[in-house]
Amino acid sequence: MKPWIAVDWGTSNLRAWAMGPDGPTAHGESPKGMGKLAPHEFEAALLELAEPWLAPKDAGETLVLACGMVGARQGWREATYRAVPCTPTDAHGLIRVATQDPRLDVRIAPGLSQSKPADVMRGEETQLAGALALYPGFDGVFCLPGTHSKWAHISAGEVVSFQTYMTGELFALLSGQSVLRHSMADGWDDTAFDEGLSEALSRPDRIAARLFSLRAEGLLHALPGAHARARLSGLLIGIELAGAKPYWLGQPVKLIGASTLSASYARALATQGLTAEILDATACTLAGLAGLRLNLET
Amino acid sequence: MKPWIAVDWGTSNLRAWAMGPDGPTAHGESPKGMGKLAPHEFEAALLELAEPWLAPKDAGETLVLACGMVGARQGWREATYRAVPCTPTDAHGLIRVATQDPRLDVRIAPGLSQSKPADVMRGEETQLAGALALYPGFDGVFCLPGTHSKWAHISAGEVVSFQTYMTGELFALLSGQSVLRHSMADGWDDTAFDEGLSEALSRPDRIAARLFSLRAEGLLHALPGAHARARLSGLLIGIELAGAKPYWLGQPVKLIGASTLSASYARALATQGLTAEILDATACTLAGLAGLRLNLET
Repeated sequence: MKPWIAVDWGTSNLRAWAMGPDGPTAHGESPKGMGKLAPHEFEAALLELAEPWLAPKDAGETLVLACGMVGARQGWREATYRAVPCTPTDAHGLIRVATQDPRLDVRIAPGLSQSKPADVMRGEETQLAGALALYPGFDGVFCLPGTHSKWAHISAGEVVSFQTYMTGELFALLSGQSVLRHSMADGWDDTAFDEGLSEALSRPDRIAARLFSLRAEGLLHALPGAHARARLSGLLIGIELAGAKPYWLGQPVKLIGASTLSASYARALATQGLTAEILDATACTLAGLAGLRLNLET
Repeated sequence: MKPWIAVDWGTSNLRAWAMGPDGPTAHGESPKGMGKLAPHEFEAALLELAEPWLAPKDAGETLVLACGMVGARQGWREATYRAVPCTPTDAHGLIRVATQDPRLDVRIAPGLSQSKPADVMRGEETQLAGALALYPGFDGVFCLPGTHSKWAHISAGEVVSFQTYMTGELFALLSGQSVLRHSMADGWDDTAFDEGLSEALSRPDRIAARLFSLRAEGLLHALPGAHARARLSGLLIGIELAGAKPYWLGQPVKLIGASTLSASYARALATQGLTAEILDATACTLAGLAGLRLNLET
């Protein structure tokens, strides 16, 4: 198999890997995410990282497989969503992008859409494909915690349904930009997290009343900032788990995500009697792109 | 009664009224809210608006009665909260602030605190006092929609308990700064508001799943931006109403707030069989400060 390039191109960041027969041989990343680029700027941003990895001019094109928001309407080129139920990825769905540099053969993996309840993903479908490559035949639920957490129900190798929660973005907005920021500090407290989680799970109807109390407890009872932060996280993950109950109840669940955040979700799921293994998100992305590479080959 | 000056000094804005025996005789406002001022800057900000209204130098001090965040720890001078249950305001609780200008006699009305569930208010207590002056003997619930909506249970002239919801701030953050901003536009749609309201009230546990769907419905089904905005408002007011149910259920409810927002709350309460009269927030503030003025006199 010829060397190729794997790219995870999100809203905020661009990450690229030179791929050899045994996996990554080099890695680069830049802050040139989709959100900061006009369509004509993507190629240069890619070359900044990947040019050293391209084959010599007379040795033909180098394949670049990219996933993520690069395929959004505001991205390099729109890669139309594939509608669930379907396999997470499909080499036939890849969209080729025209480039100025003749050494590049860039293809973008489309995201998934669900008509009702309306939902979309871009990038996570590749992680799901990678996770399924690592656990062939897995039937159950993947949870991908993050800015926009996703829950996906997998059966017979297909994504049957999925659901997005703005948990990470809500946490960032509330802890960093709302009045609650005055009551937050770095650090963590597991008990405070568990309290918030339990409050939200047992009385989801009261979630809106719980938020301002973090500020009031800081003012009146000197609630430490690290406790307020952990309790906020517990409340938000709790209300996500309340909503996602039809996904995780009675199902095997695996987490795909950053280790600290995934550990919080695993802790939360454990209170509901679930043991959730944590898979590394980057490893899943690379396995998913490598699977596409393999399918292109055959 | 000598002329005096009424001041509503919030986080974002300063509003002042010259008060004669029959009510306001002049009005001014500035963006010099508490959030933008260091303690030594408050007096000058007040004089910018109110100097023309002060009595001549040899005619003694002019009373200035102020309520709101001006009395916060980060304000001009901290006015320690009064703990509920108690009357909304009390002339004995006013805090006098030392001023450089000898013509000023500035007094700040303290806010209210509640130990458990922890909660605080600054400014709304004066509106509650004003509303009670307008409706003496009212027993029931006031709802004060806004950035931080408050629900207050009133009995025998006292605030028995209250609860704060960050509904207005959540709406501003989600519609203006989150990924949902791409799906929002000016305008309004009552049906979309009602849908969001009903979703949140009937299934509060699913609130977190409803938010991102506004984005996805925009992408997949071309949900109009005005509909998305109204549905978001319905979802957030709905989850507030779900939490505040112990307040409004079976109670007479009056709203104190801006007319458009209060009309949305009235519409929401009407779906639960409640008819809520709307009182003007500024009129309540002025009536509350005037009541304090009267109590100082006697």
